[in-house]
Amino acid sequence: MNIPAPIITLTTDFGTSDAYVGIMKGVILGINPNAQMVDITHAIPPQDVHEAAFSIHSAHRYFPTGTIHTVVVDPGVGSHRRAIVCQTDSAFFVCPDNGILSYIVQGTETACRPYRSVTIENPAYLLPQVSNTFHGRDIFAPVAAHLSLGVPLASIGAPIHDVVQLPMPTLNISGDTLTGQIVKIDGFGNAITNISEEVLALFLTTGARLESALTGERDAYEIRAGSARLKRLNRAYAEAEAGEPLAIIGSFGLLEIAVNGGSAEARLGLKRGDAIVIQSFA
Amino acid sequence: MNIPAPIITLTTDFGTSDAYVGIMKGVILGINPNAQMVDITHAIPPQDVHEAAFSIHSAHRYFPTGTIHTVVVDPGVGSHRRAIVCQTDSAFFVCPDNGILSYIVQGTETACRPYRSVTIENPAYLLPQVSNTFHGRDIFAPVAAHLSLGVPLASIGAPIHDVVQLPMPTLNISGDTLTGQIVKIDGFGNAITNISEEVLALFLTTGARLESALTGERDAYEIRAGSARLKRLNRAYAEAEAGEPLAIIGSFGLLEIAVNGGSAEARLGLKRGDAIVIQSFA
Amino acid sequence: MNIPAPIITLTTDFGTSDAYVGIMKGVILGINPNAQMVDITHAIPPQDVHEAAFSIHSAHRYFPTGTIHTVVVDPGVGSHRRAIVCQTDSAFFVCPDNGILSYIVQGTETACRPYRSVTIENPAYLLPQVSNTFHGRDIFAPVAAHLSLGVPLASIGAPIHDVVQLPMPTLNISGDTLTGQIVKIDGFGNAITNISEEVLALFLTTGARLESALTGERDAYEIRAGSARLKRLNRAYAEAEAGEPLAIIGSFGLLEIAVNGGSAEARLGLKRGDAIVIQSFA
Repeated sequence: MNIPAPIITLTTDFGTSDAYVGIMKGVILGINPNAQMVDITHAIPPQDVHEAAFSIHSAHRYFPTGTIHTVVVDPGVGSHRRAIVCQTDSAFFVCPDNGILSYIVQGTETACRPYRSVTIENPAYLLPQVSNTFHGRDIFAPVAAHLSLGVPLASIGAPIHDVVQLPMPTLNISGDTLTGQIVKIDGFGNAITNISEEVLALFLTTGARLESALTGERDAYEIRAGSARLKRLNRAYAEAEAGEPLAIIGSFGLLEIAVNGGSAEARLGLKRGDAIVIQSFA
Repeated sequence: MNIPAPIITLTTDFGTSDAYVGIMKGVILGINPNAQMVDITHAIPPQDVHEAAFSIHSAHRYFPTGTIHTVVVDPGVGSHRRAIVCQTDSAFFVCPDNGILSYIVQGTETACRPYRSVTIENPAYLLPQVSNTFHGRDIFAPVAAHLSLGVPLASIGAPIHDVVQLPMPTLNISGDTLTGQIVKIDGFGNAITNISEEVLALFLTTGARLESALTGERDAYEIRAGSARLKRLNRAYAEAEAGEPLAIIGSFGLLEIAVNGGSAEARLGLKRGDAIVIQSFA
Repeated sequence: MNIPAPIITLTTDFGTSDAYVGIMKGVILGINPNAQMVDITHAIPPQDVHEAAFSIHSAHRYFPTGTIHTVVVDPGVGSHRRAIVCQTDSAFFVCPDNGILSYIVQGTETACRPYRSVTIENPAYLLPQVSNTFHGRDIFAPVAAHLSLGVPLASIGAPIHDVVQLPMPTLNISGDTLTGQIVKIDGFGNAITNISEEVLALFLTTGARLESALTGERDAYEIRAGSARLKRLNRAYAEAEAGEPLAIIGSFGLLEIAVNGGSAEARLGLKRGDAIVIQSFA
């Protein structure tokens, strides 16, 4: 029986046209030849810490307990920002301390609370030479690899209790109106919001199950996203006409604006940060 | 001696800019930590089932016997289309039942005949919650992972005998003219046709070996592809002048129109579905 | 204890939108199911041998000793160019003999000298059918896989002593002027030059440590890159104002022109091959 290889994921803004990601993997394999490495994505827009924060939050819960997530979107590389490891009940995160864990540590998942964090200080777990421009190679990859060998958090550096936080997208309820935000446009052009299925169900049905809101039998609410005015929630993309917009609870359990067979981003001119307004007529 | 890891390939239209592919891999590793995962491509044009069908057909025969191919281009996700597993003598395919296996099951390879298929029904092999929008994560990845652990086909669901088929590109011979189609433009801009080396040899030489047709000593035939009129087959891209079009038997054993050091797609305005006409003057 | 899997890296210009890279991996796993495969990059510009040469040189030193690097950018595929394996003290390289190892074998790293090379001749280590258009699949992948199983170099083919070399970018010192070249534009738009930290330190400080040149206290030199005139070296991208150009010793130990939070390529109109001139006023 093989011992399962420790899993190390990689999320960066390095792209895949240069050798940078391959180099990080070479460093990891030099320390732990049995590491099982998985790319989450390397196409985070350059230096877009918020997008990386959303991506790792949406992905981490689908990995086995003990997975080590290396997340490197690092506009402050070489400055005084800290490098950290954060441990939750389910995973380790190795990253710059720039807010990249905001969705993880501000989330509601019990697996992420409490969490423990340390600064990366012990040179024994870094490459011998640390550059000012590529900490993915010199700091984050080797620390992830050493963690995968069982190095304890306490050996890496001192505890910290003030992990940097980004402001989170807001969610407001005022009278008969719920206002959320688009937090991510995915590669299909779907606009993912910060309005969860639970919040939507509570808002629309005053505690009833969302199922009843899904029937769409009454003109009970309107969802406004860019130029779209949607009167119902769909259960599948294919329920809408080809090329037509729809609202759906997407695969992350969040309200999503999509276009059947097309891009909501292009069709409706949506972008991250845009408000999504839901008005209840109940 | 290590036990070889079971191989699971992934072919999707998810792109690599979002976390979707990484999430599928996390699900697989949570079920089988020893899975050896290989990306075929995640750049199938969105919802282009035909392109996915061609890609998995061209790739599967180069993988070891028993490889599990997960193919998810799924415009009907959440609708009533079936999810299936298809087993041939050489491989397993886990995919939506939307024609994505057309090249596999309509092909002439003996390794793909006969094949056995089942619908995916047993909830024990799915994620506990199945969304309507991401069956790659909730159905196809976990089923592939369970197959890699040795779960038998019969445990997954009931046999079916009516796997959905796409119409295949046509190939016509009429008098001295052979008409085929471009079935794929690759990333170099090469136009791959559905005219195999065997068919071409039979057509051009009435059963003689293609080798004699390759000599190009006589003005024996003309290949018409867009604006190009080609009088011979080349054996290597470098045989043509730089920037000039050529016809060649490509790496899949199919007639291919290429441009030495350039793109036949751009230079000749070719696209998938275009007719390729070969006229014999013999 | 698992036996560490042999590492095989892949660097190509195949892109990731077709099945070509996945097919190479299938071939490798068919020969050595325990191979640990790592992508360096598949986005080398089509047929750009120089770019591939730079990429594999920058990456190889971060992989464990014994790693097998497969490098396939191969405009001459199917012609008479040789296929080779080159072994250094630290690694194996499997590639066409077209200059792709120029940075490796002309470099100053002791780990790469001496090196031994053979032509690939023994059909036992190739696929049974070798096409004229896809040697990555038919020659380079299977040879890499057999090497990872311990096949000795001498079994693969005859020694050669005339590995093809590309002309290397020039570096000239004339009086108070050092002229180098941009050798690579990376995905962030950073312009990487062939001027190493050591050369720069010697030129600017007549043997003193570069540290003193970094103080920037005097108007001691000027770096000219496109329209930029830079008077100092920075230690981190974030030291420059947002959107402003800077000079820095990058992660490969080479002088790099960058723009904080932006692209030096776009902002300064830089491209590979452009001269970078440093004038000393000391």
